[in-house]
Amino acid sequence: MNLEEKQISYDYIYKGKIINLRKDTALLPDGNTALREVVEHPGGVCVAAITKKNEILMVRQFRYPYMENVLEIPAGKRDKGNESPLECGKRELKEETGAVAEKFINLGQLYPTPGYCGEIIWLYAATGITFGQAQPDSDEFLSVEKIPFEKAVDMVLEGEIKDAKTQTAILKIKLLKDKGIL
Amino acid sequence: MNLEEKQISYDYIYKGKIINLRKDTALLPDGNTALREVVEHPGGVCVAAITKKNEILMVRQFRYPYMENVLEIPAGKRDKGNESPLECGKRELKEETGAVAEKFINLGQLYPTPGYCGEIIWLYAATGITFGQAQPDSDEFLSVEKIPFEKAVDMVLEGEIKDAKTQTAILKIKLLKDKGIL
Repeated sequence: MNLEEKQISYDYIYKGKIINLRKDTALLPDGNTALREVVEHPGGVCVAAITKKNEILMVRQFRYPYMENVLEIPAGKRDKGNESPLECGKRELKEETGAVAEKFINLGQLYPTPGYCGEIIWLYAATGITFGQAQPDSDEFLSVEKIPFEKAVDMVLEGEIKDAKTQTAILKIKLLKDKGIL
Repeated sequence: MNLEEKQISYDYIYKGKIINLRKDTALLPDGNTALREVVEHPGGVCVAAITKKNEILMVRQFRYPYMENVLEIPAGKRDKGNESPLECGKRELKEETGAVAEKFINLGQLYPTPGYCGEIIWLYAATGITFGQAQPDSDEFLSVEKIPFEKAVDMVLEGEIKDAKTQTAILKIKLLKDKGIL
């Protein structure tokens, strides 16, 4: 079954600070056309850092679109030229929490909301944590929290942690630990 | 530590079919202001339906923002007036796969990308599956696949399934099954 759509035309509605918005006309597999709204984003990286005491480093920050504080693993967008996802993850972990890790483990990619958004989020676990000085961005207000890892798993299962990358990374690490892989 | 931001002003850049885009000025905790780009979305619902043979129902569809086929659990947006998340999940499962479920289990909410987007995705598991006739939307081309549940878990752990809601729902169900809760 051919599912492929093709771009017929595009129109930039907005080019902004973090995102762009495009409105395209797409050719559908049956020959008809459809409107496709596309949010462009440079991509993000998140790091689930596990301390020697088996705690996970989390940041609580106000997320304006929800008008509430949201508990997440450290993350940020790829905005420094040709920085690789891994380099971006190391930088964001250090900036937001002050932590430096000996070892990074690739946990794959995440497509947050593929119907209308092209963002890719790279997921990493990190171990061998030591602490330096945090340096958050000037418009970024964070509270860093250390949560026992098994408690964080329960918080995900009980619906208390809502952020997609955080839920996915914590549950992946839990299952990889249970299998003896991590 | 006060993390709260307040809305000072807003400006609708775009009001569209699936999303709206707003550009706000926010008051930060330190008294400074910052630009906040906000994608508005009516919210979505997804359903991880597990058959009596312990297979999970998945749909493969072309996701235009990535220009690739993406494997996901059935899902859709809340667009029918006052429809509850559960009613929306039942409807989307039926429309996309033809499946009807005896039992729905609430798996909590997911915030796909909270930095700039206010979408909430409600997650459900569903069991006691029987099949009727699928009725996808006119601009929606889907291939329905049944995948053994444990294979789907491995596909998530190996990075082969990228969609956020699908990764989260599969891993939650796996851990709830392991704990004997589901």
